[in-house]
Amino acid sequence: MAKSNLAQKALILHKKLGGKISTGLPMRIKNRADLSLIYTPGVAAVSSYLAKNPKRARGYTIKGKMIAVISDGSAVLGLGNIGPYGALPVMEGKAALFKTFANVDAFPIVLDTQDIDAIVETVVRIAPAFGGINLEDFASPGCFEIEERIKARLDIPVMHDDQHGTAIAVTAALMNAAKVVQKKFEVLKVVVVGAGAAGTAVAKLLLKAGVNHVVVLDSKGIVHHGRTDLSKHKADLAHATSRHHGLRGELRHALAGADAVIGVSGANLITAEHIKMMKKGPIVFALANPIPEISPEAALAAGAAVVGSGRSDYPNQINNSLVFPGVFRGALDNRVSKITDDMKLQAAKNLAALVKKPTAQKIVPDPFEKGIAAAVAKAIK
Amino acid sequence: MAKSNLAQKALILHKKLGGKISTGLPMRIKNRADLSLIYTPGVAAVSSYLAKNPKRARGYTIKGKMIAVISDGSAVLGLGNIGPYGALPVMEGKAALFKTFANVDAFPIVLDTQDIDAIVETVVRIAPAFGGINLEDFASPGCFEIEERIKARLDIPVMHDDQHGTAIAVTAALMNAAKVVQKKFEVLKVVVVGAGAAGTAVAKLLLKAGVNHVVVLDSKGIVHHGRTDLSKHKADLAHATSRHHGLRGELRHALAGADAVIGVSGANLITAEHIKMMKKGPIVFALANPIPEISPEAALAAGAAVVGSGRSDYPNQINNSLVFPGVFRGALDNRVSKITDDMKLQAAKNLAALVKKPTAQKIVPDPFEKGIAAAVAKAIK
Repeated sequence: MAKSNLAQKALILHKKLGGKISTGLPMRIKNRADLSLIYTPGVAAVSSYLAKNPKRARGYTIKGKMIAVISDGSAVLGLGNIGPYGALPVMEGKAALFKTFANVDAFPIVLDTQDIDAIVETVVRIAPAFGGINLEDFASPGCFEIEERIKARLDIPVMHDDQHGTAIAVTAALMNAAKVVQKKFEVLKVVVVGAGAAGTAVAKLLLKAGVNHVVVLDSKGIVHHGRTDLSKHKADLAHATSRHHGLRGELRHALAGADAVIGVSGANLITAEHIKMMKKGPIVFALANPIPEISPEAALAAGAAVVGSGRSDYPNQINNSLVFPGVFRGALDNRVSKITDDMKLQAAKNLAALVKKPTAQKIVPDPFEKGIAAAVAKAIK
Repeated sequence: MAKSNLAQKALILHKKLGGKISTGLPMRIKNRADLSLIYTPGVAAVSSYLAKNPKRARGYTIKGKMIAVISDGSAVLGLGNIGPYGALPVMEGKAALFKTFANVDAFPIVLDTQDIDAIVETVVRIAPAFGGINLEDFASPGCFEIEERIKARLDIPVMHDDQHGTAIAVTAALMNAAKVVQKKFEVLKVVVVGAGAAGTAVAKLLLKAGVNHVVVLDSKGIVHHGRTDLSKHKADLAHATSRHHGLRGELRHALAGADAVIGVSGANLITAEHIKMMKKGPIVFALANPIPEISPEAALAAGAAVVGSGRSDYPNQINNSLVFPGVFRGALDNRVSKITDDMKLQAAKNLAALVKKPTAQKIVPDPFEKGIAAAVAKAIK
């Protein structure tokens, strides 16, 4: 479908729907007897009980099943800082995917502030009704501080999906791509183009998974510990990565002899020449949306052995919709209060294992295959 | 049903349900084509459009249909300050009634703060996704400032239901009770026992409706402009009421020769002796929950001509569930940004008119009768 045609269809559909999430009633209220149990006077017994035993709220209220999908609209898709109203259709879409893929109830909240202190306080104050917080489309580097501070304040799972959902999906895809090119995953030389939310989390989870050679680049080149222009999160990243490889310079210096390149940055940053500099059997994930770092066709023409993108119109769509529904399904079912790095790594392994015999055309499952959320959920305990 | 039995049944039912509100999908997502419209890449067109035209969000997102039901848990039912977890089952119940009675989507939010500034800022910051705000169970007098400040900051309807929902229901009931005792509504001498959220709003709406003789009492007696111990909202109330009647003293001074007494305070504050002091054909609304100011049986035995309560196990249940679903149904359908006093009065008239021939046993409709929300909604435009 042509892009303008799809855009037009999406606008018409959204206007017709008027919101992609509605509320539903687990129990219909048919008469006064129902009313007296669900509402006054019966509800008073539940309220009194939870006032004395707030930790039991998960068993008696929506706190046992409801996830908040929260954004400040500062980094929405590839559209940038478009604010709460621009973010709302995306958050509604995520809430709909939670329900569709994992039967998780999720509700979209968009914030009319981009101040870090205000964001943290607001999320903490509205948290009592929720069993988990999915942070979404918060811009880097603020996203790191926001996630850490909210996690420290709450006893429910909090996850910035642009970081960790992406990292889990990419790690799973790379595990299977390594099998396709018959290389050992842990000894891959991996180049991550982009040091924002996704790039940072991808690099960290690959290190956690045992891949030592991970090179990360930002707009100024390789992120290494010799640079003096790095923000705190990039300095941490330089420390975690460059002590293993010692590389400096630009993308071409990073790619010479690399096994895999993961683009999480912006349109057209990777060229055919770049791919030709890589080792035999190059793995190319070009995940920028809607325009990737290099088109799948161009990557294949340049000799890429395995290609993945974020797009639904090519094979190997590496998307966090494979991940977030299952992560929160597992967190709710197992009453997990923190999503740890060990759980994320196990989630990546479980996701990868769903593809029994990986091929160049299939390194990740299709999002509509059965059992994805259940497999990911098993890791979150 | 015995109280402890009802309480036990309510606890068991709530544990079984695990939350009285779930999310629903107006459109099922069945395949990649659906996904590309509801989520990326199609949703980007809607996001871009709303970033440029935020006022159009009502037409394309849940902002056109979703109400937030928000509480800080500071005055829940008759249970007092029991905090957010105590409040949550009640807010879920309200959200379920919104859906049941008016097909309004409403979502419960409970706040982990009781600081007025923090409450105002939090509600304003989460407002973009909502088409209206139903404030609930905020304690007096903070509730007045909270409602006024939030209204001033937002362009969506904001209503503290304990005030205005109650006032509309009571005004409608009193209009019909006056017919039963064959008195003219406007010349009734009305005594309001309680000067909190409900009492204040009831008094103001009765004045707006043309009832001049309205006497309000707090725990220290008649609220009049000669008192020096009054908070700001009570001083305003004294100014609005006591210039018409000039009364001072206690409940018995207020009730001597009164036509109607409206209890919105606490258990057992009205006695048979009090009712015997009233004019012929006394109207007694004893709305405290679960234990009224005087039991309906005792009020009738003392000579009351018309009796109403807040309880579902007696005739004439005067409850805001007759009101709030229709108010927000109308506000959403007619894209109303403020709920004015004129609208509230018209809502009371429409609600009263649903009872074609009021009798002592029936001055308000049963909440499950058809057409209540629609009749109230017609007033909100």
